[in-house]
Amino acid sequence: MKVNVSDVEGDIDYKKLSKKFGVKSIQRYLKKIEPLDKIYRRGYVFGQRDFGRITKAIRKDKEFAVVTGVNPSGPIHFGHKMFLDQARFFQKKGAEVFIPVSNDESYFFGKVDTLEEANANAKSLIPDIIALGFKKSKTNIFISTKTPSVYELATRLSTKTTFSSVKAIFGFNNQTNPGAIFYGVMQSAHILLPQTKEFGGPKPVVVPIGIDQDPYIRLSRDISAKVGFVKPSSTYHRFMLGLSGGKMSTSKPETCIFLTDKPKDAEKKLMSAITGGRKSAEEQREKGGEPEKCSVFQYFSLLTDDDKKLEKIEKECKSGKRICGDCKKECVKHLKRFLKKHQKKRKKAKKQVDKFMLEG
Amino acid sequence: MKVNVSDVEGDIDYKKLSKKFGVKSIQRYLKKIEPLDKIYRRGYVFGQRDFGRITKAIRKDKEFAVVTGVNPSGPIHFGHKMFLDQARFFQKKGAEVFIPVSNDESYFFGKVDTLEEANANAKSLIPDIIALGFKKSKTNIFISTKTPSVYELATRLSTKTTFSSVKAIFGFNNQTNPGAIFYGVMQSAHILLPQTKEFGGPKPVVVPIGIDQDPYIRLSRDISAKVGFVKPSSTYHRFMLGLSGGKMSTSKPETCIFLTDKPKDAEKKLMSAITGGRKSAEEQREKGGEPEKCSVFQYFSLLTDDDKKLEKIEKECKSGKRICGDCKKECVKHLKRFLKKHQKKRKKAKKQVDKFMLEG
Repeated sequence: MKVNVSDVEGDIDYKKLSKKFGVKSIQRYLKKIEPLDKIYRRGYVFGQRDFGRITKAIRKDKEFAVVTGVNPSGPIHFGHKMFLDQARFFQKKGAEVFIPVSNDESYFFGKVDTLEEANANAKSLIPDIIALGFKKSKTNIFISTKTPSVYELATRLSTKTTFSSVKAIFGFNNQTNPGAIFYGVMQSAHILLPQTKEFGGPKPVVVPIGIDQDPYIRLSRDISAKVGFVKPSSTYHRFMLGLSGGKMSTSKPETCIFLTDKPKDAEKKLMSAITGGRKSAEEQREKGGEPEKCSVFQYFSLLTDDDKKLEKIEKECKSGKRICGDCKKECVKHLKRFLKKHQKKRKKAKKQVDKFMLEG
Repeated sequence: MKVNVSDVEGDIDYKKLSKKFGVKSIQRYLKKIEPLDKIYRRGYVFGQRDFGRITKAIRKDKEFAVVTGVNPSGPIHFGHKMFLDQARFFQKKGAEVFIPVSNDESYFFGKVDTLEEANANAKSLIPDIIALGFKKSKTNIFISTKTPSVYELATRLSTKTTFSSVKAIFGFNNQTNPGAIFYGVMQSAHILLPQTKEFGGPKPVVVPIGIDQDPYIRLSRDISAKVGFVKPSSTYHRFMLGLSGGKMSTSKPETCIFLTDKPKDAEKKLMSAITGGRKSAEEQREKGGEPEKCSVFQYFSLLTDDDKKLEKIEKECKSGKRICGDCKKECVKHLKRFLKKHQKKRKKAKKQVDKFMLEG
C-alpha cells in the first residue's frame, strides 16, 4: 500500500492509514447532524480531524465554511463529485462554499502539459460544479492563478513555514520546480481564505479531502495556528473503485464516468465494468455476488437516494438472485437519466458562471 | 568585497564584478542613442548585457520595453530614482515602461515585518514614480501580488527551472521560506511579462538593475530561451555613495535622501554629509577635494542637467577653490528646489494612479 500526495497504489487499509495520519472515525459525529447525505449514510466518509467544531457550528447555527478543491487535470468524474456532494451538503447545513480550481497544481505536478490545458479544463468544469446545485449567494468558485487575493494570502503565509518543513511533508528533490515547492503554501491559502478579513475573519472551516492529500491539511493547520486562524477541520472518504479494476484515474477514461460523458459512452463503460460477480453464473447463484467489491453497485449507491431500494439490490446480489448483466442494465438506466439531467443543467449553468465566481 | 542578492559590502570594484558576472562595458553603445540622459553622460551606468538589441530597436524605431522594479521596503530614494530615470529615458526613446512593485519580495526577504507594511509603502511610492514624468499611455505600474497575470506567468515559467538551479543562483537553506524559493520565478515573470501575447509577444526588453541583482537577470534569461521569448537585455549602474559614508540603505534614513523627505530634513542630512574634502581647510586649499568620493558632488551631478556647471564645480573642488561648507549650501538649494517641485507633482499624481496601473 502506497499513499502520498502524488501516488495511490495497492489495496488501501483505511484503518491503518487513519492511524498513521492521526485521523479519527467520523461515526460518532454523524448522528448529530442528521439528516445526512447518502455519501455519509453509506459509509463513504470514514475519517475526520476536528470535526466537532463543524457539528457545533451547524447545531448552534454559527458561521462556518467548506473548502474543497478541484484539480483541473481533466473533466469532473464521480470521484470528484463526492467532494462536491459533501460541499453541497455542508452548504445546506449553513456553510459558505469555497471551491478553488487549482490550475497551478495541475501544471506544477505535470498532470497537464501546458497551463493553457488546465485553464481550458477549468473553464469547462466550472459549469459542472454549478449544475450540481450550489446556491449562488453562498458559493465562491475561483481559479487559483486568476484570483490575486490567493497569491497575496500565500505570500503572507509563506514566512510561517520553511523549506525543510514542506520538504519533509511533500518530499521534494533537486529537480522539483520552484512552483511545486511553493504550492503547499498556495493550497494553504485556498484553505484559509475563508478566514481572512475579506470573508469575516476566523471561523471553523471543513475541508473534504482525499486521505492522500492529507499532508496539505497538516501544513495548513500548522500555518493557521501561527496567523491567528482556527485550525481547519477535514473529512476523508474512500477512493472509488475503478470500472476496470484498480484505481479510478482522470488520465484513464475507461476507469471512470465523467459528468460530461455522452450517455451512450457512459453506458459502454459501465457495461464492460468489472463487477463483484463470481467466475461463473453457477458459482454466482451458489455463493452470491460481492457488492462491496463491485464498481456497478458503487454507482448504484451514488445514483439512488432510496435506501430501501439499495438494500434490496444488495440482498439480491449477495443471495445470488441478481445476475451482473441485468444489474448493469438497470444501473445504466439510472446513470443515463442522471447524465442527461445533469448535462441539461450544465448548459444552463454556463450562462451563470460569473455569478458563482469569487471576485478579486 | 561582497556582492550578492542579499548583501552589498565593502569597496566595489566594478571591473572585477563585471568580469565575474560576464557583464560588458556599455560605452561603445552610448553614442548610438544620443542625446543621453545625464545618468549616462556622467558614467553612472557602466555595464550591460545584450544592449545591442536595444540600440537597434531604438534606431530602427522597433517596439521594445523597459522593466525596472521597485522593492517597497520604504520610500523611494535617489538610488531608486536612478533606475526610474533610466526607464523614463528609454520611454522617451520609444519603450513601453513596466514597473513591478514587488511587495512579495519585500516580505519574503524580511525587508518589512508585514505584507501590509509593504502594501502601504507601495501605495505611497506609486505617486512618486508617476511624478518623475512618465507618459500614462506607455506606462504599466503593477503590484506583484495584486496582478494575477504575474503569478499566472510565473506558474507557466516555473517548470522551466528547478530547485537546484535557483538554489545555485540564490543560495537557499532549509530555513528559507517557500515564497523566497519561488520568488526568482516571480521576478522572471515581472521581467518577461512584456513579451506575453497580452502585450504583443516577444520583443527586446531592457532591465536597468543593480549588479547585485544580476542573478535574477541570469535566471530570467535562462528561462526566456525555453519559452520562445527574446533574452532580456540589462544595464548596470554604480551604487550611490551613502551620505554618512558607506552604502546607502532604505533602513538607514541618514544615508540617503528620500523623495518624500521634507526639504528641511533633507537639508539637515546633506549638511552633515561626509564629503570628498580634506581633513583641514588648509589641506583642502593645497591638495584640492576629491569629488569622485563626495556624496555631495554626487547629488550635484544627479540634480543639475547643466554639464558646464557641473564641470565648473568639479574643477573648483579639485583646485581647492571650493570649500565643502559653501558647496553643501549650494547643493542644498538645488535639492530643496527639486524636492518642492517633485512633491507638488506627487500631490497631483495621487489622483492619476489608476491611469498608470496595469489592469489584470
